[in-house]
Amino acid sequence: MRRSELNHAKQRTADIFNQVGIRLTEEEASNIEIAWFGLNDLEKQGLELVTYVNSDRYCAKELVLFPRQTCPEHLHPPVGADPGKQETFRCRAGKVWLYVEGEATANIQAIVPEGSEPYYTVFHEIELNPGEQYTINPGIKHWFQGGPEGAVISEFSSTSRDENDIFTDPGIERMPTITED
Amino acid sequence: MRRSELNHAKQRTADIFNQVGIRLTEEEASNIEIAWFGLNDLEKQGLELVTYVNSDRYCAKELVLFPRQTCPEHLHPPVGADPGKQETFRCRAGKVWLYVEGEATANIQAIVPEGSEPYYTVFHEIELNPGEQYTINPGIKHWFQGGPEGAVISEFSSTSRDENDIFTDPGIERMPTITED
Ligand SMILES: [Zn+2]
Ligand SMILES: [Zn+2]
Repeated sequence: MRRSELNHAKQRTADIFNQVGIRLTEEEASNIEIAWFGLNDLEKQGLELVTYVNSDRYCAKELVLFPRQTCPEHLHPPVGADPGKQETFRCRAGKVWLYVEGEATANIQAIVPEGSEPYYTVFHEIELNPGEQYTINPGIKHWFQGGPEGAVISEFSSTSRDENDIFTDPGIERMPTITED
Repeated sequence: MRRSELNHAKQRTADIFNQVGIRLTEEEASNIEIAWFGLNDLEKQGLELVTYVNSDRYCAKELVLFPRQTCPEHLHPPVGADPGKQETFRCRAGKVWLYVEGEATANIQAIVPEGSEPYYTVFHEIELNPGEQYTINPGIKHWFQGGPEGAVISEFSSTSRDENDIFTDPGIERMPTITED
């Protein structure tokens, strides 16, 4: 992705935090992370986030999903002595549909990103509205999509090691390079 | 404390969360915890909280301090294999003054609760405004007070074991009994 597109997405994310009353320091706002997974279609598959703290014991992040934006299917494997990341998603604003392993829900509400259908394989749906949360255990495949108005989500978890995440789509790069423009 | 006073404080806390746009489920609102530390002077020394998640790996809570309300000085000791709770306080609304071990600040902004002066012994001041945060390592004594308008604080931490906290004031009970009325 081009630097100018990233900056645009950062500003849009900062505006959303502002609208829902989540305050960031200037430094945090300038460090908003845009995860586009190397797919070059941020609106469809991507995630915007601020990491508040990531110590060797716990992690807390604030996530933004644009309307119908999808964080692609992945899991958090064991890393050394760590059994893998356990994470709790708490919806703060908007709506999010979360999909995990288990019995597939008959008519899911999310729209699987077109062209990436083979890389979405778990369909047990959990709908989270503001104030609702769900905890995902290590090793469980999951993906999630913002509702029609998008979503803001607090993530509380054990230590985050994003570079170890395993995505179902082999074309995904968690840390792709930026094109300067 | 009497049940009726507790219920009043719970409702006041729920109203504050509502005002600052923090959404709770009905179950969470009905489980708001009022910590009065057995001191029977909640307005002066106390804390209101909701625990979102407390797994064997991490914990997240939302705290409320009424105006000038103080959470008394304490520390989090090692418990078995756990080196003690590490906690990050993130101010969401209002203002909080946090005091930790280290060089005493010349003119602290908080008012030490009258009559409890002997039980406040650390005075290195950190002021947190919305969007600002601070991480306290295990074993470090700390206390904190809400500003003139009170405060709402997110706490991200390792596993919480409140019953093991060590308070400087030997008269404090973390889990005192409620008087039915
Ligand atoms: Zn995940
Ligand atoms: Zn503490």
